[in-house]
Amino acid sequence: MADEKSDKMSMIVFSGDMDKVMAGFILATGAAAMGTDVTMFFTFWGLSAIKKNAISDGKNIMEKMMGWMLPKNIRGLGLSKMNMGGMGRWMMNRMMKSKKVASLPELLETARELGIKLVACKMSMDVMGIKQEELIDPDMPVAGVASFLENASDSKVSLFI
Amino acid sequence: MADEKSDKMSMIVFSGDMDKVMAGFILATGAAAMGTDVTMFFTFWGLSAIKKNAISDGKNIMEKMMGWMLPKNIRGLGLSKMNMGGMGRWMMNRMMKSKKVASLPELLETARELGIKLVACKMSMDVMGIKQEELIDPDMPVAGVASFLENASDSKVSLFI
Amino acid sequence: MADEKSDKMSMIVFSGDMDKVMAGFILATGAAAMGTDVTMFFTFWGLSAIKKNAISDGKNIMEKMMGWMLPKNIRGLGLSKMNMGGMGRWMMNRMMKSKKVASLPELLETARELGIKLVACKMSMDVMGIKQEELIDPDMPVAGVASFLENASDSKVSLFI
Repeated sequence: MADEKSDKMSMIVFSGDMDKVMAGFILATGAAAMGTDVTMFFTFWGLSAIKKNAISDGKNIMEKMMGWMLPKNIRGLGLSKMNMGGMGRWMMNRMMKSKKVASLPELLETARELGIKLVACKMSMDVMGIKQEELIDPDMPVAGVASFLENASDSKVSLFI
Repeated sequence: MADEKSDKMSMIVFSGDMDKVMAGFILATGAAAMGTDVTMFFTFWGLSAIKKNAISDGKNIMEKMMGWMLPKNIRGLGLSKMNMGGMGRWMMNRMMKSKKVASLPELLETARELGIKLVACKMSMDVMGIKQEELIDPDMPVAGVASFLENASDSKVSLFI
Repeated sequence: MADEKSDKMSMIVFSGDMDKVMAGFILATGAAAMGTDVTMFFTFWGLSAIKKNAISDGKNIMEKMMGWMLPKNIRGLGLSKMNMGGMGRWMMNRMMKSKKVASLPELLETARELGIKLVACKMSMDVMGIKQEELIDPDMPVAGVASFLENASDSKVSLFI
């Protein structure tokens, strides 16, 4: 592991809950705006935040089932509490809009514009049967846990979300 | 971001689950007792831990609905698992008492006595329609994510709870 | 707290969800394989990951109820999402096997072989009525929050899972 701490922040986005992913992006874009080099490593349920609608061909039955059950993309994420079949999400989105707070898809866009490194976890993609072409950016880096850890050991702040 | 790590701990309390908030306070008061300068940044559901009963006037209908649905204060938080309509909480509280472990309201009190900095997240207060006068301490600092990040980058330990 | 950061990683395993505990072990074994000195501190629901089947005698009624309600051991953990009465767990396990990803019990075994320090939280054991002899390793260290914090303040990466 690296020996000196540079101006970096590392984040594991494990959760696929709208509110938690939003907290992650708010922290990440805030840090990037302050000049920090931010990496977000999406794993398990968090992968839903960096998928696009399309479900690619050539999946086996288990992989297809996973695809049906998981949210299709970042717009499909539900709240961790009081989601009430989507009503909580609708209400949260409405209140955010009235307070002029950026929506989750807008935060994702800002994150990309600010040059935040979005990385997909290789093992989770394998287990959940998600293909590279299903990610929002087909060139998105896909990496293992060692790559995250190397980055984290060199970061001032590391968070598991 | 700051360049040298001082004896600080930073915590984001995102969760409003009784057990998680309790874990946060146990870590925070433990660190403060060891002489560490601790900041707890309450955001999203975590705000319920630093609210008092009163719901202030002048709220719009969405803000009122949020107020009805969220726990009124720290005593109303439920367990993240096995809450069973409050029975899990009752059981947990009973077992804690029999083992002479401090309750959540007592931990909050200790945190304040130890000088732990309790900060409310401005954006979450806006989105959830929580007013300054609804916080347990009307002078409680309300700050944005940048203030948290500056503190975290200077902390030896940063946690997202 | 210590003044220089050594090659250490500290993790609080608060969650007892199969997927989160798995993420914890994947990070921990990955770091240990890279030569990092890893400590996992199991607290609250996380204790279920380091228990064995046996429930010891001499428990009072509340402690017995807790024992019945909690998963018996690491094989009994459910998914945080889409568990569907165990079907989600079965599906996840099947997909992991087909992709040759280590199962949770295998990860626990690897963690022990790699010399990862598994520590049980004393206060949680008290509150939940779990006895030392119920842990997978009867010699497993049982410690308080101060011990965790001392380790974390000296770690390059600290995570709350």
